[in-house]
Amino acid sequence: MKIICTKSNLAKGVGIVSKAVPSKTTMPILECILIDATASMIKLTANDMELGIETIIEGDIVQPGMIALDAKIFSEIVRKLPDSEIVITTDDNDQTLITCEKAKFQIAGKSGSDFAYLPYIEKNESILVSQYTLKEVIRQTIFSIADTESNKLMTGELFEVEDHILKVVSLDGHRISIRKIELKASYDHKKVVVPGKTLMEISKILSGDAESEVQIYFAENHIVFEFDQTVVVSRLIEGEYFRIEQMLSSDYETKVHINKKELLNCIDRATLLVKEGDKRPIIIQIGDDTMELKIQSQLGSMDEEIFITKEGKDLLIGFNPKFLIDALRVIDDEEVTLYFMNSKAPCFIKDEKETYVYLILPVNFNAI
Amino acid sequence: MKIICTKSNLAKGVGIVSKAVPSKTTMPILECILIDATASMIKLTANDMELGIETIIEGDIVQPGMIALDAKIFSEIVRKLPDSEIVITTDDNDQTLITCEKAKFQIAGKSGSDFAYLPYIEKNESILVSQYTLKEVIRQTIFSIADTESNKLMTGELFEVEDHILKVVSLDGHRISIRKIELKASYDHKKVVVPGKTLMEISKILSGDAESEVQIYFAENHIVFEFDQTVVVSRLIEGEYFRIEQMLSSDYETKVHINKKELLNCIDRATLLVKEGDKRPIIIQIGDDTMELKIQSQLGSMDEEIFITKEGKDLLIGFNPKFLIDALRVIDDEEVTLYFMNSKAPCFIKDEKETYVYLILPVNFNAI
Repeated sequence: MKIICTKSNLAKGVGIVSKAVPSKTTMPILECILIDATASMIKLTANDMELGIETIIEGDIVQPGMIALDAKIFSEIVRKLPDSEIVITTDDNDQTLITCEKAKFQIAGKSGSDFAYLPYIEKNESILVSQYTLKEVIRQTIFSIADTESNKLMTGELFEVEDHILKVVSLDGHRISIRKIELKASYDHKKVVVPGKTLMEISKILSGDAESEVQIYFAENHIVFEFDQTVVVSRLIEGEYFRIEQMLSSDYETKVHINKKELLNCIDRATLLVKEGDKRPIIIQIGDDTMELKIQSQLGSMDEEIFITKEGKDLLIGFNPKFLIDALRVIDDEEVTLYFMNSKAPCFIKDEKETYVYLILPVNFNAI
Repeated sequence: MKIICTKSNLAKGVGIVSKAVPSKTTMPILECILIDATASMIKLTANDMELGIETIIEGDIVQPGMIALDAKIFSEIVRKLPDSEIVITTDDNDQTLITCEKAKFQIAGKSGSDFAYLPYIEKNESILVSQYTLKEVIRQTIFSIADTESNKLMTGELFEVEDHILKVVSLDGHRISIRKIELKASYDHKKVVVPGKTLMEISKILSGDAESEVQIYFAENHIVFEFDQTVVVSRLIEGEYFRIEQMLSSDYETKVHINKKELLNCIDRATLLVKEGDKRPIIIQIGDDTMELKIQSQLGSMDEEIFITKEGKDLLIGFNPKFLIDALRVIDDEEVTLYFMNSKAPCFIKDEKETYVYLILPVNFNAI
């Protein structure tokens, strides 16, 4: 194989597919990036068997062929080469010569035929969203997946399409995050659970451009994201997702309207008295025009008042401050509305149209 | 005690003195910052018994007094408070109330009288340099101190004043870095060894402003740096510094003139084939108009040629690539000159006036 491409094209492509290279594996071939120049284009692929990414880069194929190169070494070499043309040449023993200007690197490659190709997916049903929207919706929900493997479904996010709405849900047993996105067209009902890892990696690759689109295909066991010159294929998490409808209620006894940034900064300040791993709650006292936030720990105590607009009853309720921070951080509105039932029932942060709903369970602060 | 000052003034002062707070200590009082408002100004002090820093901040003293506050908690509170006026009030039990707008923090302080004050230093002999110069000379030499405590003198830097020259030297047994600074006045001979840690911390505090000056006082066992509203006092390292003159020679058999950036980038690329802890040398072959750099490891091999201007003999010599990179990174000249004797003798990178001299021992690459 002999190919020629610019450093910037190669570096971009390697950066994209590297997201699917596993950090630990017992199969060394999976730690490689496959360069496939057997056909009319140069395709880079990485695949950790759960998540696979391929991308096409511009360049000239002088002699067709393919090679698998250790992803870590290869990407470091590419990154450190001068901003010029890179020539990659392999011999019959998979020895690979990478040259750029006067720099020559020689590394051992692996036969491309050992590489695990991406599974073939029948691409039938698909929806279209902008790169910006997909990147945003992942950011706005990914924080509330569970990091434990004890319940596999909690490590993923529900992607549900109903007519012209895409609903994305994540939950970890203490909170639920829901985002609804209006699609440009109406589609058949689809409901899958996408691994959180896939979504985290894909959001690093997405440009976030509002003008560029992502085609999302739904298959039996896989989801496929196609955008720019890149294809991301991921396994789905099997099983029935949680019935969240029964946990959502529009009843409330107390409704609070508050400046988001003030609330967020206040909780953020309060948490500095809480050491990592300490489950100290923040206690919120809702009065007529003010909300008082208090926290107490071995390090000291803090309290602060914030002006609010309130409807309904006064309330004293405690929360894990991190859960409030996580939700408030991804809401772009200047003012937010919080709905409470009582000190044992979940709090809802949501807008009127319910384009976002964040449900957070309170903590029993007397018991702590 | 009750004092009022702006968040920005307090945050700046706390940031400065925090550099002298030890990360680990058996004496909890040393983990504190002392706020001393007993006299007409507000002075912050931290002291790890080797290094002490005090700085004066602007503010109003409503009621004189002093208090020692845990540096970590106090600085986090200050950092997260709104950009407004901060009021610090203490009671008879050293309970401290920190308020800012509607936020109130209550933390336990310690009696200021338990605090270890900075030692009193007789300030006689001093020199004057700009903040820029001191910050730069530390950056240009600090990388070649030894991090081992087995030879205490190697963990510090020699500061030697002779007439109107300040010479700063660091060495670690494999290399020597020397910088000479021309002073605006002529001074008596002074020769001290300053702990590397002191220099690293002070360089973080220095503004790097070429117009602001630092007064450096030399005392029996201490060195004192005075600048802006800040005083840094450090113990010196005791003992006779190494006689480096006998290691410096102006003889050479090969003299190479080379573009610094090209050389640095080339060595930087080569090191990606060397894993952390692997002492693989870079081998340099000096010919008439080119220098060829080669490196070989289990990961692969790399070679690259760079155009040079050469005087004298051809040479084949090996180096620890990190040592070359460290020295080249802190030289601002576009072109550098390297002087070699033979493959067993040190290489010198220096300018004509010897404002900088970097000596690097070669490695015996046949033996590896």
